[in-house]
Amino acid sequence: MTENALPNLTGAQAFQLAELFRALSDTSRVRIIAALLEGEVNVSALAELVGISESAVSHQLRTLRQMRLVRARKQGREVYYSLDDDHVVDLFQRGLDHVQHG
Amino acid sequence: MTENALPNLTGAQAFQLAELFRALSDTSRVRIIAALLEGEVNVSALAELVGISESAVSHQLRTLRQMRLVRARKQGREVYYSLDDDHVVDLFQRGLDHVQHG
Repeated sequence: MTENALPNLTGAQAFQLAELFRALSDTSRVRIIAALLEGEVNVSALAELVGISESAVSHQLRTLRQMRLVRARKQGREVYYSLDDDHVVDLFQRGLDHVQHG
Repeated sequence: MTENALPNLTGAQAFQLAELFRALSDTSRVRIIAALLEGEVNVSALAELVGISESAVSHQLRTLRQMRLVRARKQGREVYYSLDDDHVVDLFQRGLDHVQHG
């Protein structure tokens, strides 16, 4: 079959979608996003909220930023992280709906 | 930290959410779901649409059914697959929005 069999989804889009969902397929990353639903948080507060080391949080944040799920804002010497946009909130909420209504 | 640090998300829910997103983190599974957005499809038609073998489609469908993303309906000797509910459609659409507006 050619890519045209799925007119609404190119091979590249299917790959990008799979990568997006892969970025969310980790319990620590899910907990980081859940923490960011409340608003901006810095690395040390995230580490405390999620219950992993700051270095582990930084590692996971890199993955989340690469997929544009999370963005960073520098203020003085501190970096604050937040969800990139409302798509992320919606995506996360829809996933939670599915899990909760199961 | 205790689980109470994230009042809206228990440890079990974080795990289930990560597992849900993991089920979607595969290009073939993404393409199967995209094909099912149009309606019910049987395994042989799915295999043709997605461009993988029927046995590979069946394998991926098992994962998708375990996560209640896809359901099966038997009619005579044929089994038809469809998306389990509107949450799945929404979840997929939100993911696509994120990828497309990137």
